[in-house]
Amino acid sequence: MAELIEGLFLPRLGSPDLARADDSAVLPEPGGQIAFTTDSFVVDPPIFPGGDIGRLAVCGTVNDLAASGARPLYLSTAFILEEGLPLETLERVASSMAAAAEEAGVRLVAGDTKVVPRGKADRLFITTSGIGVIPEGMNVSGHHARPGDVVLCSGTLGDHGMAIMVTREKLGFAGPIESDVAPLNGLVEAFHPLRHGLHTLRDATRGGAAAVLNEIASQSGVAIEVAEEAVPVRPAVRAACELLGIDPLYVANEGKLIAVVAPEVAEEALAIWRAHPLGRDAVRLGEVLEGPAGRVHARTPFGTTRLLDRPLGEQLPRIC
Amino acid sequence: MAELIEGLFLPRLGSPDLARADDSAVLPEPGGQIAFTTDSFVVDPPIFPGGDIGRLAVCGTVNDLAASGARPLYLSTAFILEEGLPLETLERVASSMAAAAEEAGVRLVAGDTKVVPRGKADRLFITTSGIGVIPEGMNVSGHHARPGDVVLCSGTLGDHGMAIMVTREKLGFAGPIESDVAPLNGLVEAFHPLRHGLHTLRDATRGGAAAVLNEIASQSGVAIEVAEEAVPVRPAVRAACELLGIDPLYVANEGKLIAVVAPEVAEEALAIWRAHPLGRDAVRLGEVLEGPAGRVHARTPFGTTRLLDRPLGEQLPRIC
Repeated sequence: MAELIEGLFLPRLGSPDLARADDSAVLPEPGGQIAFTTDSFVVDPPIFPGGDIGRLAVCGTVNDLAASGARPLYLSTAFILEEGLPLETLERVASSMAAAAEEAGVRLVAGDTKVVPRGKADRLFITTSGIGVIPEGMNVSGHHARPGDVVLCSGTLGDHGMAIMVTREKLGFAGPIESDVAPLNGLVEAFHPLRHGLHTLRDATRGGAAAVLNEIASQSGVAIEVAEEAVPVRPAVRAACELLGIDPLYVANEGKLIAVVAPEVAEEALAIWRAHPLGRDAVRLGEVLEGPAGRVHARTPFGTTRLLDRPLGEQLPRIC
Repeated sequence: MAELIEGLFLPRLGSPDLARADDSAVLPEPGGQIAFTTDSFVVDPPIFPGGDIGRLAVCGTVNDLAASGARPLYLSTAFILEEGLPLETLERVASSMAAAAEEAGVRLVAGDTKVVPRGKADRLFITTSGIGVIPEGMNVSGHHARPGDVVLCSGTLGDHGMAIMVTREKLGFAGPIESDVAPLNGLVEAFHPLRHGLHTLRDATRGGAAAVLNEIASQSGVAIEVAEEAVPVRPAVRAACELLGIDPLYVANEGKLIAVVAPEVAEEALAIWRAHPLGRDAVRLGEVLEGPAGRVHARTPFGTTRLLDRPLGEQLPRIC
């Protein structure tokens, strides 16, 4: 294992902190409130169209920090490896992690590796934790949505979940679908000038946009209305969803943010996102209503509404 | 899973940060350099004499922070659960984590839970990450040992590893052996007054004291001599080690610190540890020599020496 760490991870992830091999990374004072988050990644398969578990593990944690309004600074990564895992898989995953960390501008500063016997884990699991610093004046939370606020979505929905499902179930019919896995901290950074009008940020992962909107509605004690025709979905994803009878609002994303903003900054916010490479397809998804508290519904182009319930159970296990 | 988190974890781990359910915990400015560490725990069996994987996951991360000279502040915890894991196991583990966090004076502020199908993990794996703050004037590292320094050990060696081995292999012969798993930050805190003479701290986990001493000798470019007759080992652990042909210096601990201190503070340091409930059996284990760089040996009571090599591979998989 020492050889594995020195020979494989250090050259790829190779930050001076990892190489120091003390019990913890020692880091400069962050200079502000900090955000701290953790996630385990158990995605099946570990390599999928558009990414792999390494990119996912870095982006997932970066995005949780970004969705708290934080600037991501440092990540740790802990590997649980099944004995017999091909070294090429590990090399690819380590390289992906390093590339995604560079893309996001974060440093991998601490790590751990455990190996379990064959059959006691499924190939590899990665747990990443992250620390970020909250810029002065940034104060977002699922509890801060207010009636009259506008709900923005940074791009097309359902790409990650459908890429996994189509790969796993070998459903090639719908044309190529790639995961949207990407670090979203740039989209949050871009909102800095209008941070006082920014109330809530969420990355729409497991359970999709519908789960996130339900959490926000329930935490803030408001209702949320989605404009059905505004929901951005790629044609191949829409086709696959229709064939499988799944609503893209419930499908996981790994590169999409939902923002709740004050109405007076909504247009500017949308323009900022659309000018960013990861927000080109951003839309005004809907709005926040007085109540009933916790209710989320979609308004169809015909003027009728349908309830978007909190998803019951997981639509697709091991999506991330 | 939402039910699992709300019904089981929150009442037990229940910090206000976890209950807030935003993407990250938002925490006050730590006010100093920070230490950051992560570890996955895959111990088999998850419940063992003297503790369980929950206590181990909290103490292991607290101890990595403490061994960096930091005051542990916040922990995150990520669970990977095998479908069908008995709820009683999870309840016990969650309660243990909460109790250990209270004992250590740290807060569990962020969490994640993933469930994988039966056969895709072995019961439960826990990854904990931690943040601590380094007090002014504290500057310990494996690179700081100097010739003439004294090596201290906070208590008996081999308890954790032998407790696991005896349980796993059903070797009841040796009498009851309990893991020493405990939070060691109190032992580091107690050293605060003499922090300027404190050069290196390590908790002697996988690979035992011998692995840690080898790391220090190699990082600092010094040799280390252990006084064989000073090595503290409980009679039942010694008996089990002799029967199995294992050197207790190579057996894992989860509640023992190795400290390298300047000779002028060594007596005071030892007295401080012996006055602490977790350091009652502390000893002067050996000393740091000029060279050869990286060499660790034991001097026997007969005046001969034997090499204490860096352990090759893991003596016992899934020890933590």
